[in-house]
Amino acid sequence: PSALAQSQARAHQEQLTKPAGALGELEQLVIRLAGLQGRAQPCIDQCHISIFAADHGIAAAGVSAYPQAVTAQMVANFAAGGAAVSVLARLVGARFDVVNLGTLHRPDPDPRVLDRWLGPGTADFSQQAAMTVEQRDAALLAGAERLAQAQAAGCDLFVAGEMGIGNTSAATALGAVLLERDPEQLAGPGTGIDAQSLGRKVALIRQAIQLHGAGRPDVLEWLRCLGGFEIAAMVGAYLHAGQRGVPVLVDGFISTLAALLAVRLNPALAPWLLYGHCSAEPGHRLLLQALEARPLLALGMRLGEGSGAALALQVVRSACALHNEMATFAGAGVAGPGA
Amino acid sequence: PSALAQSQARAHQEQLTKPAGALGELEQLVIRLAGLQGRAQPCIDQCHISIFAADHGIAAAGVSAYPQAVTAQMVANFAAGGAAVSVLARLVGARFDVVNLGTLHRPDPDPRVLDRWLGPGTADFSQQAAMTVEQRDAALLAGAERLAQAQAAGCDLFVAGEMGIGNTSAATALGAVLLERDPEQLAGPGTGIDAQSLGRKVALIRQAIQLHGAGRPDVLEWLRCLGGFEIAAMVGAYLHAGQRGVPVLVDGFISTLAALLAVRLNPALAPWLLYGHCSAEPGHRLLLQALEARPLLALGMRLGEGSGAALALQVVRSACALHNEMATFAGAGVAGPGA
Repeated sequence: PSALAQSQARAHQEQLTKPAGALGELEQLVIRLAGLQGRAQPCIDQCHISIFAADHGIAAAGVSAYPQAVTAQMVANFAAGGAAVSVLARLVGARFDVVNLGTLHRPDPDPRVLDRWLGPGTADFSQQAAMTVEQRDAALLAGAERLAQAQAAGCDLFVAGEMGIGNTSAATALGAVLLERDPEQLAGPGTGIDAQSLGRKVALIRQAIQLHGAGRPDVLEWLRCLGGFEIAAMVGAYLHAGQRGVPVLVDGFISTLAALLAVRLNPALAPWLLYGHCSAEPGHRLLLQALEARPLLALGMRLGEGSGAALALQVVRSACALHNEMATFAGAGVAGPGA
Repeated sequence: PSALAQSQARAHQEQLTKPAGALGELEQLVIRLAGLQGRAQPCIDQCHISIFAADHGIAAAGVSAYPQAVTAQMVANFAAGGAAVSVLARLVGARFDVVNLGTLHRPDPDPRVLDRWLGPGTADFSQQAAMTVEQRDAALLAGAERLAQAQAAGCDLFVAGEMGIGNTSAATALGAVLLERDPEQLAGPGTGIDAQSLGRKVALIRQAIQLHGAGRPDVLEWLRCLGGFEIAAMVGAYLHAGQRGVPVLVDGFISTLAALLAVRLNPALAPWLLYGHCSAEPGHRLLLQALEARPLLALGMRLGEGSGAALALQVVRSACALHNEMATFAGAGVAGPGA
């Protein structure tokens, strides 16, 4: 981040026709974005949203309200423009792609979906490691590749979304490990399971953490044992964003868990991550706290797909428009305070 | 509000390709808007923002960080497109007008500003009633007139913004009376005064409440004694919105105070009022509580002008787009829960 652009943006804010600080968090946001984009007048001309989709072996254990087939069905729905994030991407004029990293069945070729299929979903992490080393590394690379492509196409802000029946279980397991908390403190209803299924979800996660913890895994090994292809892809995209200097708007619970993994792997990434919203999934708040993140919105959403970030993008754009288009005291002939 | 449209919208939400409730407050918002607009697929094609501006006699007592001249200067800035709300209105494609109800000096004719000038601002309410009966009623009417004009031009959603150096003092005084609280609990820095000026502001408001309370005023009489031309105009616009069935998106502290006055005058208005944001002005939260209002955003803004509502409009539009454009489970061939 550029300290010069940031201080120029701060000085510009003080000249705008409003009481100092009256735009609240929008002022801090645009000043921070100025530093990230290295220009005193930041803007989001082109936002890129990549949706990473994959299935999870743990879903067979009944931790989700929906069957695994929904992952592939939703991949088609994203591509056809009918999913929530598809609608929001259109509304905000964001570029949008969908990456299939491993649905239960290998999909037929579809020109609207990027095929990076690594297998029929992960293995059931309550029994064995979710991924092989090769799968994990290929998923990390697939994410980094999307970021690089988006940047090459001129993206000012990157959003990673996800879809994967069972992935709140994987994210809860990884979150519990990283935050050193009992899974019960993070576990939530995901797509909407009842209390009994929630109890089973927590028990399976506890068991899995014990199983894999015996090998004293590091962060990348935990990701392999408990994660998902789409989670690894998001980690790869975020890490690459930090290296390439592309600001990221993080979405909900799963995205924030991927952000925490990425920041643990490279703490220098942290300044590049902005946070779009706080979801209703109970673990999200804990992850945000650990990242010292202040999300822009809190609307009780719990959908993932990048939907919360796509909504928050409108706040980021508004902050930029205000910064770049408002008149200054001098320009508008408005007296300043105490004048 | 139409209960039929509301229940049709609720049933439609249940068919959309997302877990039930996963869009959180956006779902409640669009269902409520369906009821207000009387159509199962609500939308905001045309939003109208009216900015009401006027000066306040109390400002001469040193309760603001800015000189009174700023009110007229900002009227010109709104019209020229340089103020925060001007920028946001452009960004969201809202229609926009500015009404001068009484700046300190009568302005030269300006085709971009509606002249409804009622006098050189209000009188100092710590010494005498802020307005005459005629001024108050003309201001109420001017607000109702803007609402009627906006509706005639096809407005789907109405926003009232305000500008008036000293108007947080008037709003704090009226809020303290309506909520039966000491002004200290509501008073804040407004445009940015120091602790000493804040103490003076509170003392003047206490004195004014005692002075005018002797006449056992009703709500309209309190409005006359302590209010401002722009506050009365907002009350008039809101009351008329309830009568004419136009949904309103309420802005910040001053707007919410006007909403509370209007709801006290006509409780049937309440369902027509949506709330855009919670400002940093301490009294705002108390007013929102009294109205049982849940604002969409909380970004620490404290600017007024309709700026928070203009920002929140994007959330309302997003909720409508999701509702109207997302695929259904059946249409997209996505399995529902437990399938």
